[in-house]
Amino acid sequence: MSQESKAKNGTLSPWRKKVHEIIFEADTPAGKLFDVTLLIMISLSIIVVMLESVEPVRKEYGSLLNIVEWGLTILFTLEYVMRIIAVRNPWKYIFSFYGLVDLISIVPTYLSLVTTGAQTLATVRSLRLLRVFRILKMGRFLKEASTLKRALVSSRPKILVFLLAIMTIVTIMGTIIYMIEDPKDGFTSIPRSIYWAIVTLTTVGYGDIAPQTVLGQFFASIIMIMGYAIIAVPTGIVTAEIARTPSKDQINTQSCPNCSKEGHDSDADFCKFCGSELD
Amino acid sequence: MSQESKAKNGTLSPWRKKVHEIIFEADTPAGKLFDVTLLIMISLSIIVVMLESVEPVRKEYGSLLNIVEWGLTILFTLEYVMRIIAVRNPWKYIFSFYGLVDLISIVPTYLSLVTTGAQTLATVRSLRLLRVFRILKMGRFLKEASTLKRALVSSRPKILVFLLAIMTIVTIMGTIIYMIEDPKDGFTSIPRSIYWAIVTLTTVGYGDIAPQTVLGQFFASIIMIMGYAIIAVPTGIVTAEIARTPSKDQINTQSCPNCSKEGHDSDADFCKFCGSELD
Amino acid sequence: MSQESKAKNGTLSPWRKKVHEIIFEADTPAGKLFDVTLLIMISLSIIVVMLESVEPVRKEYGSLLNIVEWGLTILFTLEYVMRIIAVRNPWKYIFSFYGLVDLISIVPTYLSLVTTGAQTLATVRSLRLLRVFRILKMGRFLKEASTLKRALVSSRPKILVFLLAIMTIVTIMGTIIYMIEDPKDGFTSIPRSIYWAIVTLTTVGYGDIAPQTVLGQFFASIIMIMGYAIIAVPTGIVTAEIARTPSKDQINTQSCPNCSKEGHDSDADFCKFCGSELD
Amino acid sequence: MSQESKAKNGTLSPWRKKVHEIIFEADTPAGKLFDVTLLIMISLSIIVVMLESVEPVRKEYGSLLNIVEWGLTILFTLEYVMRIIAVRNPWKYIFSFYGLVDLISIVPTYLSLVTTGAQTLATVRSLRLLRVFRILKMGRFLKEASTLKRALVSSRPKILVFLLAIMTIVTIMGTIIYMIEDPKDGFTSIPRSIYWAIVTLTTVGYGDIAPQTVLGQFFASIIMIMGYAIIAVPTGIVTAEIARTPSKDQINTQSCPNCSKEGHDSDADFCKFCGSELD
Repeated sequence: MSQESKAKNGTLSPWRKKVHEIIFEADTPAGKLFDVTLLIMISLSIIVVMLESVEPVRKEYGSLLNIVEWGLTILFTLEYVMRIIAVRNPWKYIFSFYGLVDLISIVPTYLSLVTTGAQTLATVRSLRLLRVFRILKMGRFLKEASTLKRALVSSRPKILVFLLAIMTIVTIMGTIIYMIEDPKDGFTSIPRSIYWAIVTLTTVGYGDIAPQTVLGQFFASIIMIMGYAIIAVPTGIVTAEIARTPSKDQINTQSCPNCSKEGHDSDADFCKFCGSELD
Repeated sequence: MSQESKAKNGTLSPWRKKVHEIIFEADTPAGKLFDVTLLIMISLSIIVVMLESVEPVRKEYGSLLNIVEWGLTILFTLEYVMRIIAVRNPWKYIFSFYGLVDLISIVPTYLSLVTTGAQTLATVRSLRLLRVFRILKMGRFLKEASTLKRALVSSRPKILVFLLAIMTIVTIMGTIIYMIEDPKDGFTSIPRSIYWAIVTLTTVGYGDIAPQTVLGQFFASIIMIMGYAIIAVPTGIVTAEIARTPSKDQINTQSCPNCSKEGHDSDADFCKFCGSELD
Repeated sequence: MSQESKAKNGTLSPWRKKVHEIIFEADTPAGKLFDVTLLIMISLSIIVVMLESVEPVRKEYGSLLNIVEWGLTILFTLEYVMRIIAVRNPWKYIFSFYGLVDLISIVPTYLSLVTTGAQTLATVRSLRLLRVFRILKMGRFLKEASTLKRALVSSRPKILVFLLAIMTIVTIMGTIIYMIEDPKDGFTSIPRSIYWAIVTLTTVGYGDIAPQTVLGQFFASIIMIMGYAIIAVPTGIVTAEIARTPSKDQINTQSCPNCSKEGHDSDADFCKFCGSELD
Repeated sequence: MSQESKAKNGTLSPWRKKVHEIIFEADTPAGKLFDVTLLIMISLSIIVVMLESVEPVRKEYGSLLNIVEWGLTILFTLEYVMRIIAVRNPWKYIFSFYGLVDLISIVPTYLSLVTTGAQTLATVRSLRLLRVFRILKMGRFLKEASTLKRALVSSRPKILVFLLAIMTIVTIMGTIIYMIEDPKDGFTSIPRSIYWAIVTLTTVGYGDIAPQTVLGQFFASIIMIMGYAIIAVPTGIVTAEIARTPSKDQINTQSCPNCSKEGHDSDADFCKFCGSELD
């Protein structure tokens, strides 16, 4: 991303270039400092949201948390403005995933200013809690995630099939249990019985709803063993995908002496791109 | 399947050919429309079954749900009749898996007409709930499931052995716990103790029955750690099977025009064994 | 095993040969019948043990169960005697795993005859329950288990290290939680806290003991996420082992035209046993 | 480690050499005896710490446990002193991982002497419990752990990304559930709701806190299915790493005396590439 933006920035004015460098490139001291500061600010902000929800803490330190919150919001706003300035195509940034995350990180605090007594307390509270999505801003630092992401993306159709199979199983099993068990033991409706089937199939097992009849326990046992075995499927899918992505030391690091391309198999005698003999 | 039926349909009358095309082929606009309509109808139908089981919803919207149910049943009946007409060998369809699923999708609603006060309410209710099996009609759309299915089928003997091992472990462990623990803590019989062993081994852990003695907790710990380790077995089996099935974009089926060797990467331009240019 | 015994049986008298054939070989009609009968008898026997433990069933059908039990025990005794007769080295059989299982399958019922009022009821009951180990007699039919067994055996040292790591984690974590949490919430001693740590690490989570303090819940979260990630280790070990065992269609099925040996790699040009060129 | 130390010990006096041999080398009878003794002492010591925490046992056998504890501490102290004497660079040992573990294994008992009534009972108790870390001394014997360790170390960046993803999911999901559910059902604050999300995502499922509203149960279902599918990721990572590490008995390190190619199976007598006889 940084290289691409560099190329585009050919026509940016010098100070916008400088801003771009600080924000988007991590290999200058200023850029590194920016990254670390941002990381601390995000973490601090999440902690503030969490602490505000703890009754005794809010009562004691409510105004302090409020001040920190406003300080962080202003800094995030500055960051947002700087990002818009630093890129050549601001709209593309604004409607990108991280652009929206950056926007949603600052809007709730400002909205809490304009909300008057007319709004219900619940709405205001929900709005303020939206700030927790700031945690998604951290995604920018996860450059190492690419292998994982690729494995997940190429497993997507299989994982979808897997999820549909899960849905089918829990729907049918939930309905069967609903027929067998007494509503007074918690199986009051099919959706609730399906909820129980999900709790059981995924091996979570809260125990707030549990079958009491012999037949119900027999069916529950089947769901459990199915859940225990079915987990093999997503694991198998993702593992196979990751295993297909070669690790660094498996890729032949030699480059063709003629065309300099890399990525040859370890048993290759000739360059697969230009046909010259390899060393 | 669609190709096979096409071949057979050589002798079907034109309008039956047309019906066949709509129902069994997804690559014409009419066929696509049919598929989407069917998918919506199935989903709607499942939702109706679920909502009917929720007491307050049934009281409020009972008659509306009944009307929707009858509309859907008539449409499913039409679909069933059309499928019988469109295939050359109706009996083969009727006794196929999806033929039976299609039949069971419509029968319960009609049966609820003929059931009189003589039948118990429970039977009627169970019959109506059978409609939830309509969800299996969706299986037709899961064409992507073939890799998964193949991996599961070829793992079947190993998974069977695994299930038998699980059965043996829970039977023995359930009996041991039944000997150790007091019946008043829930371990009232061996089958119930085996149920507890399954709940524990599969790491579901409801907590409605839990060992109270030191010795019982010690054995429970052994079951838990066994369950935690045993899960590796189905996972290993399925993963190894999936890993053996190569993904489409990794295999390049072309062979070298010079030395005829295969196994080239999809980005290879030259044969890695003799250096000749590939097509 | 059957081949080996055949070789040894060269000196057995004809009728002992016949008995051996029936018991140890599944490819004759008599042998097949014997296997099926034995399988049914074992299943029936396990069911009897289970039903006896269910209070209402025992009261109603106690004497019937007793008769079936005695019938089965006599048949198992006959089987045991026949096995001793049919093998050339009876002592080797008697002290083999299945020999001991066969013995323990019949002894408890006979012992229940000689136990007088002097023995406590608990001892008699435990003895009778030992019959549940008859389920291990089924192991003989699991000939398909060899791949799994090989994978598990060659993973043994790694699984042992894994178990020791688990022990270390739960010991330390259990002690830490014991320090943090109040004894009245169930953490009354270190062994009990370790039991809780195992319940949590293996993701069983009964919920009968659960941390109540903020610090305790924080540590519990760490254990849970560790448990969630650690499960990857046995899975990885077993999967890698199973993946190493080649499936039938991966092994090159061609045999050497010179020495007829099989098992060549798919990229082999020369027989690895005699050096002749392969086709 | 033992070889490296041997090299360094060239200048140690003979009796220090002898001590070094006993402590660091397991292939002499004295060394083997030392290892076994140490293993027993560690196990005994852990058992003492555990038993002390069990109220009835402490009351009955308190003084006996105290005597054993002091005996073991003195022996561990001797071991610590001997280790310092036997290595050429004592400071390096003292500040190594095992050096610190060895120190922490003896300090708590001595500290319990000097603690007077001034210290609170809780501090003294915590100090004494620190002795449980003696279990880490066992790490020295896990030489087989290297493959596992290597697989884990090379998976570290991916596992870190995975943990960060988990953190993000539970933070957002915990906040959403906190908004949906009533505080009186246990969701009293965001940190507590995040704790619940971790309990659910990792499929532990204590059941002490569980969603009661339909919307809450719907979100809980999403978390459960996510947790059920996400577990595939660490498993995939570790499995792929372990699969990359070849097992010892599969690699044949000999190269063909004629064409020098490697990669022959361990049962190969002839080179599979050129047909020459192998050694």
